[in-house]
Amino acid sequence: MSTGFSLLARDGAARRGRLQTAHGTIETPAFMPVGTQGTVKAMLPASVAATGAEIVLGNTFHLMLRPGADRVEALGGLHKFMDWPGPILTDSGGFQVMSLKALRKLDPDGVTFRSPVDGSEHRLTPERSIDIQRQLDADITMSFDECTPWPATEEQAAHSMRLSMRWAERGKRAFHERAGYGLFGIVQGGTYPALRAESAAALTGIGFDGYAVGGLAVGEGQELMFSTLDTTVPQLPQDRPRYLMGVGRPADLVGAVRRGIDMFDCVMPTRAGRTAQAFTRSGELNLRNARHRDDPRPLDPECACPACTRHSRAYLHHLVKTGEILGAMLLTWHNLQYYQDVMRGLRGAIETGTLDDWTAAFEAGQRAGETETPI
Amino acid sequence: MSTGFSLLARDGAARRGRLQTAHGTIETPAFMPVGTQGTVKAMLPASVAATGAEIVLGNTFHLMLRPGADRVEALGGLHKFMDWPGPILTDSGGFQVMSLKALRKLDPDGVTFRSPVDGSEHRLTPERSIDIQRQLDADITMSFDECTPWPATEEQAAHSMRLSMRWAERGKRAFHERAGYGLFGIVQGGTYPALRAESAAALTGIGFDGYAVGGLAVGEGQELMFSTLDTTVPQLPQDRPRYLMGVGRPADLVGAVRRGIDMFDCVMPTRAGRTAQAFTRSGELNLRNARHRDDPRPLDPECACPACTRHSRAYLHHLVKTGEILGAMLLTWHNLQYYQDVMRGLRGAIETGTLDDWTAAFEAGQRAGETETPI
Repeated sequence: MSTGFSLLARDGAARRGRLQTAHGTIETPAFMPVGTQGTVKAMLPASVAATGAEIVLGNTFHLMLRPGADRVEALGGLHKFMDWPGPILTDSGGFQVMSLKALRKLDPDGVTFRSPVDGSEHRLTPERSIDIQRQLDADITMSFDECTPWPATEEQAAHSMRLSMRWAERGKRAFHERAGYGLFGIVQGGTYPALRAESAAALTGIGFDGYAVGGLAVGEGQELMFSTLDTTVPQLPQDRPRYLMGVGRPADLVGAVRRGIDMFDCVMPTRAGRTAQAFTRSGELNLRNARHRDDPRPLDPECACPACTRHSRAYLHHLVKTGEILGAMLLTWHNLQYYQDVMRGLRGAIETGTLDDWTAAFEAGQRAGETETPI
Repeated sequence: MSTGFSLLARDGAARRGRLQTAHGTIETPAFMPVGTQGTVKAMLPASVAATGAEIVLGNTFHLMLRPGADRVEALGGLHKFMDWPGPILTDSGGFQVMSLKALRKLDPDGVTFRSPVDGSEHRLTPERSIDIQRQLDADITMSFDECTPWPATEEQAAHSMRLSMRWAERGKRAFHERAGYGLFGIVQGGTYPALRAESAAALTGIGFDGYAVGGLAVGEGQELMFSTLDTTVPQLPQDRPRYLMGVGRPADLVGAVRRGIDMFDCVMPTRAGRTAQAFTRSGELNLRNARHRDDPRPLDPECACPACTRHSRAYLHHLVKTGEILGAMLLTWHNLQYYQDVMRGLRGAIETGTLDDWTAAFEAGQRAGETETPI
């Protein structure tokens, strides 16, 4: 194996695992903070590590445009460039390129697109995406695929998925095996169980170090996402990590772990931190809300982050209202800390076979809480 | 004495001192980072302390509007509100109120103004300013004054200064003496030595715990600022700290310390950090400049801040170009670290009687360096 994966415990379909990479070990289930442009927004790398995060995600699309993959390679790779010595997973660039719509042209061989930064023309193919991820020195490389839009007819979803499967095979041939470096395939097929099964079988036939479930959390809703996982995850090899891409809220993570998912990434905790939203043990809070302005209590009394141990809700409200950078810094830190705390809780519960109890307590906290509508 | 000040050493006109306040001790000469709205922008309080800063400045004007002085008082004072357990100096609000121009009306008793935040009407008088600073729990309270604009005729400067002197006397009567809490008067008089002398005599007659020099760094240039200090500082009591308000660049601090100034505040290091400017031992750098984009070197190899010990100029350039918050965070930290390093260097040089040598080395570094024009 290029990346080593071992299963340590199970509780129902949920798995407690360990993934070995060139730059370190990841305890799973794991949440990967997103470092789009070579930085987890508003966080020092040491602060990201302090939350318990063991792996971060980098974006091929953004980094190939700025500062450029050649430049990152010449400067010693992404780990050194962004001062993250631990494992890094890079996406393939496919998701962002496809979302350019008017600026891109898809053909069977790849995608030609214009940079939204400066209008320059670029091209991504399965081989080029893999090579850029090698230049970035990603521990985990993702196959280049087309993220099937939602909604899609079965015919559209099938056509899109089969293109991605051909690209996955080309990517696999282009990938240079090295110890500690892995290549993950991405299951597509929309919300059609038969297409998901076909995709899983195609990828398993090619053989990858891990299997991602793509094309979810794109508007289909939690219920359809979970039912798609219910039919898709059992099609994936037991001895490889499973990664649900771009998901999600804390309750999404819990539900997906219970369905056998091992890894996640999402911009939600960082983006929410920059827009005054906090995820807590008692629901989601909007710090912009005037009801916090005289509140001396911490955001979440059980949280160990600086926002919760050093500051009041009143102060966080003040920072948000005055547009201070420190507001974004503290709320981002808190949200990442809470996401890591959730993952830590899930890992402990699986180890001890108490996942049902843990889940019930988690859900009671979220329900009993103070969830506010975003304004 | 309300705040205790002791002189430990001298080198020429320069002084090495120690100021005792209710919330701790400040070694002088000292630079105070500016925490306008209850936060030193883009810095965690612990990071501000890590640079060696011992005191920060808070702004009466901004805090009285948001979140309001009553609210800060109810939440336990500014130290607790912003999580800065050390000494805090607050300005009087005068400087900001006067700069509102169209939104304010000056009368002999005080100033009525409209909030630029929400248009609400407010009033500041010498007594009200002192009382707000008490509500904030400032260790050092500043007299409410009119910062004389520049340029000003001698008649304008005299009229403005004499108003400030009457207000200083009222403020002194309104100030409640408490151990560890001090009130500073502010010398005005523009660039007219006779007016500065008259102002210094008036304030000394009233009696303050420290004496600030106001109305400089408002456009008159370094030469005129230094010549004004040359005639003004000798008029101030030897046994009280002297504070040059709103100054300045590193070379301004060095020149002012050599003229007997003990304390400084300025938004320059923090504001510059948010606009890609770095102050270093070899001059000022603009990280937006393309010449940094492939540069693996640290910003300043002698600096202990995270920007310099963990990152390359190429990475800082990338953060600036992509508008990432981390760029502002790292450059702000660096600039504050460098300012504290300059002050530490000055304190050491005065202690050992080597200020001329230290100054020559400082100036050679700045001259030999890579100073870039801001773009």
